[in-house]
Amino acid sequence: MRARDLAQAYITIDKEAEALEAVGVLVEHDLPGLLVVDSAGQPYAAVPACDLIRALVPGYIREDPVLAEVIDEQHADHLCQAVAGRKLVDCLPVGRPLLPTAAPDCTAMELAELMARTRSPLIAVIEQGATGQGRLLGVITAAHLLRQLLHR
Amino acid sequence: MRARDLAQAYITIDKEAEALEAVGVLVEHDLPGLLVVDSAGQPYAAVPACDLIRALVPGYIREDPVLAEVIDEQHADHLCQAVAGRKLVDCLPVGRPLLPTAAPDCTAMELAELMARTRSPLIAVIEQGATGQGRLLGVITAAHLLRQLLHR
Repeated sequence: MRARDLAQAYITIDKEAEALEAVGVLVEHDLPGLLVVDSAGQPYAAVPACDLIRALVPGYIREDPVLAEVIDEQHADHLCQAVAGRKLVDCLPVGRPLLPTAAPDCTAMELAELMARTRSPLIAVIEQGATGQGRLLGVITAAHLLRQLLHR
Repeated sequence: MRARDLAQAYITIDKEAEALEAVGVLVEHDLPGLLVVDSAGQPYAAVPACDLIRALVPGYIREDPVLAEVIDEQHADHLCQAVAGRKLVDCLPVGRPLLPTAAPDCTAMELAELMARTRSPLIAVIEQGATGQGRLLGVITAAHLLRQLLHR
């Protein structure tokens, strides 16, 4: 069992899309995270749902979590408005590997190690072409990997 | 909108259950993570799927990821056997807060901040009783929080 056998089709969203549209895609399809692509359709980032939520939290609260308590209910309920009109690419986390990727030949052990280390519920499987341009074969989610491993 | 309004019923699994049974529960219900309870039904841990996968990766590979490459495909395919016969409680990650919890009064901002900080796709909502014993009101997943916030 190799990454190429485990890769599945997955909904993608353009990094130039509106951040709120991205939230809508995640919610509508109940995804563990978003696969963000660039204008050429190349994978750009895999964003776990909790990292998308991070984008909604104001910087001063991320720095000093206790300040979350002083935001009243009404303002808290309109959290999503913080990213209204902003592009998805401008809401992605910084300082983390944006896109955990695996080569098609990777074994389940390599995939599991990568998922555990990055704490990402999705991994993009990318085949490197002769031109150096990668081709997306599909995505492996944590649930899918566990499903395939369970009865072996 | 407060944590008590957002809390939903969620499948629980006993910490003394077999780890493989826990993997089965996650896979069968396509959960973002597991809510682990103790023998009294009290919440004990919320385990994201990627942390459950972490339990399958041998310690020497977690310490030196490059070693994952030397495990052949056949052995990698039987990754789940690493936890066969082991209890779930013995497979939980160490050194991380095991259970992100919120009080029933928490606002969406406090929930979002907690989810972003812990990178957990699920939070347990717990009401502290007069006896100091907590009562589980339900769970809030990242997808559910985003769903409730999206159209406000």
